[in-house]
Amino acid sequence: MAFPPDATLADVGEFGLIAALTELFAQGEQVLVGPGDDAAVLRVKNGHVVVSTDLMVEGRHFRREWASAEDVGHRAAAQNLSDVNAMGGRASSLTIGLAAPADLPAQWALDFARGFADECAAVGASVVGGDVTRADQVVIAVTVLGACTEAPVLRSGAEPGDVVALCGRQGWAAGGLAVLGRGFRSPRVLVEAYRRPEPPYDAGRAAAEAGATAMIDVSDGLLADAGHVAEASGVAIDIHRAAFAVPDPLQAVGAALGADPLQFILGGGDDHALLATFPDDAVPAGWTVVGAVAEAGPDGPAVTVDGAAYDGPTGWVHF
Amino acid sequence: MAFPPDATLADVGEFGLIAALTELFAQGEQVLVGPGDDAAVLRVKNGHVVVSTDLMVEGRHFRREWASAEDVGHRAAAQNLSDVNAMGGRASSLTIGLAAPADLPAQWALDFARGFADECAAVGASVVGGDVTRADQVVIAVTVLGACTEAPVLRSGAEPGDVVALCGRQGWAAGGLAVLGRGFRSPRVLVEAYRRPEPPYDAGRAAAEAGATAMIDVSDGLLADAGHVAEASGVAIDIHRAAFAVPDPLQAVGAALGADPLQFILGGGDDHALLATFPDDAVPAGWTVVGAVAEAGPDGPAVTVDGAAYDGPTGWVHF
Repeated sequence: MAFPPDATLADVGEFGLIAALTELFAQGEQVLVGPGDDAAVLRVKNGHVVVSTDLMVEGRHFRREWASAEDVGHRAAAQNLSDVNAMGGRASSLTIGLAAPADLPAQWALDFARGFADECAAVGASVVGGDVTRADQVVIAVTVLGACTEAPVLRSGAEPGDVVALCGRQGWAAGGLAVLGRGFRSPRVLVEAYRRPEPPYDAGRAAAEAGATAMIDVSDGLLADAGHVAEASGVAIDIHRAAFAVPDPLQAVGAALGADPLQFILGGGDDHALLATFPDDAVPAGWTVVGAVAEAGPDGPAVTVDGAAYDGPTGWVHF
Repeated sequence: MAFPPDATLADVGEFGLIAALTELFAQGEQVLVGPGDDAAVLRVKNGHVVVSTDLMVEGRHFRREWASAEDVGHRAAAQNLSDVNAMGGRASSLTIGLAAPADLPAQWALDFARGFADECAAVGASVVGGDVTRADQVVIAVTVLGACTEAPVLRSGAEPGDVVALCGRQGWAAGGLAVLGRGFRSPRVLVEAYRRPEPPYDAGRAAAEAGATAMIDVSDGLLADAGHVAEASGVAIDIHRAAFAVPDPLQAVGAALGADPLQFILGGGDDHALLATFPDDAVPAGWTVVGAVAEAGPDGPAVTVDGAAYDGPTGWVHF
């Protein structure tokens, strides 16, 4: 289904929009009651549910001129699917809250939802409900539900002697964002990485099975998120610069912007890579060892790079 | 805990705010992993979960000058707890997404969260996670999880011959909103009803046990929500004016504003009353019969008032 190209949300109305969105969302076998009632009802098999909520705000987390509606949908879904991945679980069901200006093109909302549903389909998850309302800017609120087959992997389990390992692209999206912010559209591969992250959706569960002691998805920035693990686990984490192969397009962006390309890797967060700690003989295939866990020093939990404090950009400040 | 009265969200920062909020949220026994990780993990006993998401936008669903932060918290929680009530279930866990301007007083966010947590405590539910970020206006996204003991009561089960019944205050909040919108603060009881709705949290499950055939919470307006039931069930619903005792304060507001006070009852939606259909010998105590279900006419499902189309205000238009 498509809306006329000049139709706004005000033109199609709340119920017209909901009807069009609902048509897009295929319902999985776990859905006992889908969209359209006061609440959805979902079958739960393993006696527990993993749940996480994230917000995306236009002008802050995305810009309509930097990414298509479909791209924004992919990113919004990926960010949430990744939170369940980081627990060692798999997402099954999501809800979307969409607050938007009345003059938003209705087709934007529809394309956003299509991208969102496509990303969810990649892990077999369904959009089971949501809410739409008017606001001054586009705000997207997503809640994801899922389950683990092993015990959930928390941030708090890292042990001195563990290694720190990374799975998935890291720094690519931050490089893409940096060039978009300066008005460029290339290197294309980085811009695409920003628009449609490719989180390693199979790696979370595999890491749990392999015995990961702590895990987090890199969303605030690699060093910032390593800091969350260090803090929760009460340990020190050292990250090793030499562990990262800086890909050619990031080298090119660094050269063009006069920046150390490693800053995109150490500070970037939009790829939704996984960072985990493992006993040093338990790192599964597909992960790269990038650091080590040690006892916290006298000043408490901390993250260092090659044994020293890092003074480059390290992540995202929300207020 | 309290923030200095002039501290803004920018002053206390994302992590300062999250730490203060998390302190407020007592965790129930169903919470295996609470706030602070990539996701929460909740124990699920009955093999299913009921889930619903709602948005509240400043200037549209609430105004900071019309209600305290604590009131807004109570309302945001009530609105979502009510969605599970309307399925015949009970809420157990909620997440909150709070998008807000950097200059929002940090104490507002804390008071909002306190009101929210207090309302949740009234049904024994816990706030288990969330997200905070910056936006131009306050947008609150809530997801509620719960469970039913009976089969969930849907909107689609109303049968010709059933009666329509209402439980809870209806029209009070709409009356309160009408006086606030004109710059008044009384009748106080209506203004308070708007600021802190009192949904009949025990009535949903009792209705399911009594054999309710369809149920909805009144949030778009009584006639609009009766329309959702009629549509989903493929029936006609007639509402009887004489069934409603118009309370004195609503009479007073009607007289003062030159309006039929019944319009607040037929069009209002902020009390989160429950509207349900029952076989006519199965209406439980505490419910008032306000109408009847019949076969849909040749023009399809419809709602009438005393057998005729109603031409007053009937609810809320979102775009």
